[in-house]
Amino acid sequence: MIPSRVIERKRDGGAVDGRTLEAFLAAFLEGSVQDYQMSAFLMAVFHQGLDAGETEVFVRTMLHSGTVLDLSHLAGPRIDKHSTGGVGDKVSIALVPLVAALDIFVPMMSGRGLGHTAGTLDKLEAIPGFRTDLSLDEFRCVLQEVGCAMIGQTAEIAPLDRRLYALRDVTATVPILPLIAASIMSKKLAEGLTGLVLDVKVGAGSFIPEEDRAIDLAQTMVEIGVGRGLPTVALLTAMDRPLGYAIGNALETAEAILCLKGEGPADLRAIVRLQAVEMLRLAEPALAERAALSRVESALDSGAALERLVRLVEAQGGDARVIDSPQRLVTAPERVDVVTASRGTVLEVAPKMLGEGVVALGGGRMRMDQKPDLSVGFQMHVQPGDEVRPGDRLATVHARDPEGARTGEQLVRRAVTVGEVGQAPELRQLVSHRVDGDGVVSL
Amino acid sequence: MIPSRVIERKRDGGAVDGRTLEAFLAAFLEGSVQDYQMSAFLMAVFHQGLDAGETEVFVRTMLHSGTVLDLSHLAGPRIDKHSTGGVGDKVSIALVPLVAALDIFVPMMSGRGLGHTAGTLDKLEAIPGFRTDLSLDEFRCVLQEVGCAMIGQTAEIAPLDRRLYALRDVTATVPILPLIAASIMSKKLAEGLTGLVLDVKVGAGSFIPEEDRAIDLAQTMVEIGVGRGLPTVALLTAMDRPLGYAIGNALETAEAILCLKGEGPADLRAIVRLQAVEMLRLAEPALAERAALSRVESALDSGAALERLVRLVEAQGGDARVIDSPQRLVTAPERVDVVTASRGTVLEVAPKMLGEGVVALGGGRMRMDQKPDLSVGFQMHVQPGDEVRPGDRLATVHARDPEGARTGEQLVRRAVTVGEVGQAPELRQLVSHRVDGDGVVSL
Repeated sequence: MIPSRVIERKRDGGAVDGRTLEAFLAAFLEGSVQDYQMSAFLMAVFHQGLDAGETEVFVRTMLHSGTVLDLSHLAGPRIDKHSTGGVGDKVSIALVPLVAALDIFVPMMSGRGLGHTAGTLDKLEAIPGFRTDLSLDEFRCVLQEVGCAMIGQTAEIAPLDRRLYALRDVTATVPILPLIAASIMSKKLAEGLTGLVLDVKVGAGSFIPEEDRAIDLAQTMVEIGVGRGLPTVALLTAMDRPLGYAIGNALETAEAILCLKGEGPADLRAIVRLQAVEMLRLAEPALAERAALSRVESALDSGAALERLVRLVEAQGGDARVIDSPQRLVTAPERVDVVTASRGTVLEVAPKMLGEGVVALGGGRMRMDQKPDLSVGFQMHVQPGDEVRPGDRLATVHARDPEGARTGEQLVRRAVTVGEVGQAPELRQLVSHRVDGDGVVSL
Repeated sequence: MIPSRVIERKRDGGAVDGRTLEAFLAAFLEGSVQDYQMSAFLMAVFHQGLDAGETEVFVRTMLHSGTVLDLSHLAGPRIDKHSTGGVGDKVSIALVPLVAALDIFVPMMSGRGLGHTAGTLDKLEAIPGFRTDLSLDEFRCVLQEVGCAMIGQTAEIAPLDRRLYALRDVTATVPILPLIAASIMSKKLAEGLTGLVLDVKVGAGSFIPEEDRAIDLAQTMVEIGVGRGLPTVALLTAMDRPLGYAIGNALETAEAILCLKGEGPADLRAIVRLQAVEMLRLAEPALAERAALSRVESALDSGAALERLVRLVEAQGGDARVIDSPQRLVTAPERVDVVTASRGTVLEVAPKMLGEGVVALGGGRMRMDQKPDLSVGFQMHVQPGDEVRPGDRLATVHARDPEGARTGEQLVRRAVTVGEVGQAPELRQLVSHRVDGDGVVSL
């Protein structure tokens, strides 16, 4: 394996045979293929693509570069969910305890926020004391006791993916679809699962705005999972507007808790229920959809899901009193209502602008070494399609200081478009496609 | 300037504006843009190209990254020649003293052999004692005294080009035409010239086999030179067969010396004369072609050119007795004639195979830190078009040992194709195009 020949082959559009690509990746891991050779290779991949065989080599090599959990001692199915990331996406915080309440183990390892989307770990850390940095042993222990655990990717999991991602991040080689798929799937495959549900976000607020590319990503991930014996289902969900009303870490955690109380936004509740049904049906393939839905609803209505969240928070060191008293979450000192002077229909709530707004208010990170302020964000009061009158609130800005509040107000005014009375917004269907091993179904 | 944004812009096919590209290159030089970012950028350039403005930024930044010679104190024109490299290309060793004998200063800095082509420096070092590692001060001194000097690129000249080339070499990003042009021209522009002749080799033995790409390269280089006020002319010359009969460092030096004695192969003599005429007409633009040719021929016939080579060799510490006694050049212990059993016409002498053959015999380098054996090579006895009979010699292999001789013999048999009697080889015209500031002329 001569590194420059491997790069040359990809540069000129050829497929690199499996053994050679494996040797190339192994040499990168041990240091004889240099960063500057890998980045040139990745840029060639950006232009020439990867075929299914090459993608599988990436998955396999990344997966086996680190620890692969063996959770087969757990007495039950082990099913996780992964979202490609969007604005207001607090689904996991409600979904994980809900599914655990259905007697399914959920060993979730998630990421931090980056760019305009927030991460589940940051949202959880808005709960005072909540530890997301459990060791793998602590993780196993919480999982066994509570039925679910939520931590960050530990250094032991897929270190090759970590190194490749760090390099891609600074060499403009992140948007390579098969590598995005391989990166996600190598980490999920390391969790020792028996099933996986993927939430692929589509629209202006996601990383992949175009529907055809999102379907492509979903299919690639499902093929990787199924190809490695992991039953995998992907749902394409709308990210042309924020999900729910809360945008910003602590605000989103509060909204997820509401959801488990049977309250909160209808779109969030719908997505949580749908994904729970998918996870339950992966656990019990014989279960009919209607029966699955009824089990999910009873876990919500009985308070079992909420109670599971309390146990999860306690097991990971958090102050579980936040569940009854959301004011115990970290809070921002400055709150300003943004009021409209118009009468009409809300046509657009631009998700990316608000996601970037959270970063502008100090609540995100543009680099991984930054520590975000988890209290800031936007509590929206409208969604596309809502009618408004002069004096109605569009949003409440939660900021660190009056200057942040002013910035936030301007952002809300730019992000929300109010049209004529009776005009209808053009919106994506909340869940548009379902992808499994049998193919793509448009819903 | 955010490095990943610059890479992203090029990746997506945009032109990088001059100031930003300059800042990117400057940051690479001082170390804040990393090798892995530059290599990703270069791979993006491979796929998306560079426009004339971007190419000019590369030339300017590479040129000014190091010393730019000021030779304006010399009482006369300063004209150099550069070849893109081919097999058997020993033109410079005859051309430089010939042109110096026409009262033109020739401050030549050249490269070493790499891959299948040999470099002028290696050929000169086949002369015992000849030093190509003069300091810039020694170089100036020899130039002033002899009218010409031939050295390697010193570390002071275009260090950015050197760093970029080293990176390109190991990341499969060498074949980027505008960067090849920029690399050559930045070094030539640093020589403080008043004129430049480029020999762009076309055909299987050159780095750019395709005629259209070679014309493109010639035009790009001429535009760079003319754009920076340096009168520049390029000739496209045939490299679908070796130039002359000698292939291998010492053998080529001997053939170049023969050329200055009015002997040696007709194709070599033709190219030397034509390039000398171009250089002379750059020095004296009013001179008619016929008058220029007659001045060139009288410098050859009078022995003035040969005498100038003697002075050059002496000034650079070499044993000038080699000029009368070529056996004083380094010689190989093993010599084996390769004899044909066929009767017919030589249809092909594959140049790349023989160039690589010299490397296989130990006479080249695949990495810059290797020290080649300058004595080995092939003394061909046939060129395409020659008639041969059984028993005729195709070549004499000069090798280090009997094993090398056997390898060389096999290579010659594979490289030389003998067809039917009376069959005609398909050959490129020796000089096919001329490019100057006014455009391309097909000859």
